[in-house]
Amino acid sequence: MELYHRTQIQNVVELDLAALEAVEAGFRALGEGQVVQPPILSMAIEEANGEVDVKTAHIRGNERFAIKVSPGFFNNPSLGLPSLNGLMIVFSARTGLVEAVLFDEGYLTDIRTALAGAIAAKHLARKDSRRAAVIGAGVQAELQIAALKLVRDIDTVDVWARDTDRAEAYAVRMRERFEGLCVNVHGDIESACREADVIITTTPSKSPLLYADHLPAGVHVTAMGSDSPEKRELDASVMTSADVFVADTRTQSETNGELKAWADEIPPFEVVELGKVIASGQSPRIGRDQITVCDLTGTGVQDTAIAGFALKRLLA
Amino acid sequence: MELYHRTQIQNVVELDLAALEAVEAGFRALGEGQVVQPPILSMAIEEANGEVDVKTAHIRGNERFAIKVSPGFFNNPSLGLPSLNGLMIVFSARTGLVEAVLFDEGYLTDIRTALAGAIAAKHLARKDSRRAAVIGAGVQAELQIAALKLVRDIDTVDVWARDTDRAEAYAVRMRERFEGLCVNVHGDIESACREADVIITTTPSKSPLLYADHLPAGVHVTAMGSDSPEKRELDASVMTSADVFVADTRTQSETNGELKAWADEIPPFEVVELGKVIASGQSPRIGRDQITVCDLTGTGVQDTAIAGFALKRLLA
Repeated sequence: MELYHRTQIQNVVELDLAALEAVEAGFRALGEGQVVQPPILSMAIEEANGEVDVKTAHIRGNERFAIKVSPGFFNNPSLGLPSLNGLMIVFSARTGLVEAVLFDEGYLTDIRTALAGAIAAKHLARKDSRRAAVIGAGVQAELQIAALKLVRDIDTVDVWARDTDRAEAYAVRMRERFEGLCVNVHGDIESACREADVIITTTPSKSPLLYADHLPAGVHVTAMGSDSPEKRELDASVMTSADVFVADTRTQSETNGELKAWADEIPPFEVVELGKVIASGQSPRIGRDQITVCDLTGTGVQDTAIAGFALKRLLA
Repeated sequence: MELYHRTQIQNVVELDLAALEAVEAGFRALGEGQVVQPPILSMAIEEANGEVDVKTAHIRGNERFAIKVSPGFFNNPSLGLPSLNGLMIVFSARTGLVEAVLFDEGYLTDIRTALAGAIAAKHLARKDSRRAAVIGAGVQAELQIAALKLVRDIDTVDVWARDTDRAEAYAVRMRERFEGLCVNVHGDIESACREADVIITTTPSKSPLLYADHLPAGVHVTAMGSDSPEKRELDASVMTSADVFVADTRTQSETNGELKAWADEIPPFEVVELGKVIASGQSPRIGRDQITVCDLTGTGVQDTAIAGFALKRLLA
């Protein structure tokens, strides 16, 4: 058994098309019914404003599977520590022996989460998308754009965040990271979204931020912030006005994602899973003016896919 | 973050009263409602006859909690590898940071499982118990007796196993390990149990082995083999004829343990949880001739308790 630390993993895994293909293959297998993916194990440590989630999945026929343990302790910033953390354990799928502990401190989660956004856009957003609106100004606001640029030729980013200083700092970082990228800071969500081809929500909001009347014709929306029972970014009107609604996993979207707006009733629209979209080989978008929405809650198959990809590179 | 290997852990944790007290304190906290213990995460890897379980719990106020990952791959013996394996990850309960990975390969699970049997006997078996019957001849058949001897003055062990050669080998091992211990190999379960003060079932059986008419008056039974939906060691008659029925966790006993005999109906007897027995400070046994039964399925609180105990010793 080998233990790998964050810097070792960062040296071999980044946001590129090879990593995207690995995560996409995981979703495709999920859509083809070739994945065992149990419900998330979740435990609250209330006295520390913390929680820990465990996710896993096995892609049938793969030589390895991973289990990811991700603690989120939300008082940590006041202690000078990051909120998110954790590691992945990689097992042989033939013997169950531990092959590696990837002590990535959440790095691979950041990567596979950003890649899922890019995969959603690849299959749902208009091919000529140039302009992206980002709601939120944290790590994922940055990584989602970086990943999106792998599949769409984005030249303009419009950002809104609750804290304008953070939005301004985001704009500076992004202009430095991507030469020639035009980044505009907005004072409200409506103006940030007005010209968007793609909207990405990346916040830990507990109440809807994005409403149907924020959506320009033909936009694709990826909502990746909500990943627990108390979080929500999209108003129900976003989903009822969409032509296509996709979830990474329907059951997780119902408990942790945007489908919890319909907790006790069947949603009045079709829910398609992202893996099935990929497996079908055909985008459900059938017109330039259609509105597509994808809700990402984070799935075990992404973790198994990125961990297997990382370990292969580490062993190469 | 520190990584500790099996031999390092074996050097500091063994079956002794200090370890027993640590696990007992975990159960007591569970009985006092001071433990968060989510349901087990379980995933099958069918093509390899494998499964992986994840257990965890947090004892409120404790400075650490652990997550245990245990793969069981049942074709491994044919590859010259052990079936059971795994590791425990110890986290700070204040920050969620990983403090240690205990790569114990299942050692601490063996220990905390044996200690739970001893804890059950401590609170349920007659204090003058001398003679124990063991059904099965594997690792737990040995460790359960070693642990039981911490709390009861056992001088005689009666063993039955499906494979008589394994029972004979067990007898040799036990006589070597415990000087003066009388070990008798039996050809059937009935004769093994005839004189027992304590009966311990330690098999992976999928159908009942122990029946009410095997039980002498006043016996205590611990059933620790069944820990998954398809396993079962006790016939329903054992439980209906018992005066006291205790489970480590009622919900786990219903899905993975002996209460699954009453899957769709309420059992016709009272179910008491082991933690509540300990917290009450009073044995539910109220007479020498009463029959007590305890079903152990293995709980996250035991893992958190033994992992915290082990790390304290490793850091000492």
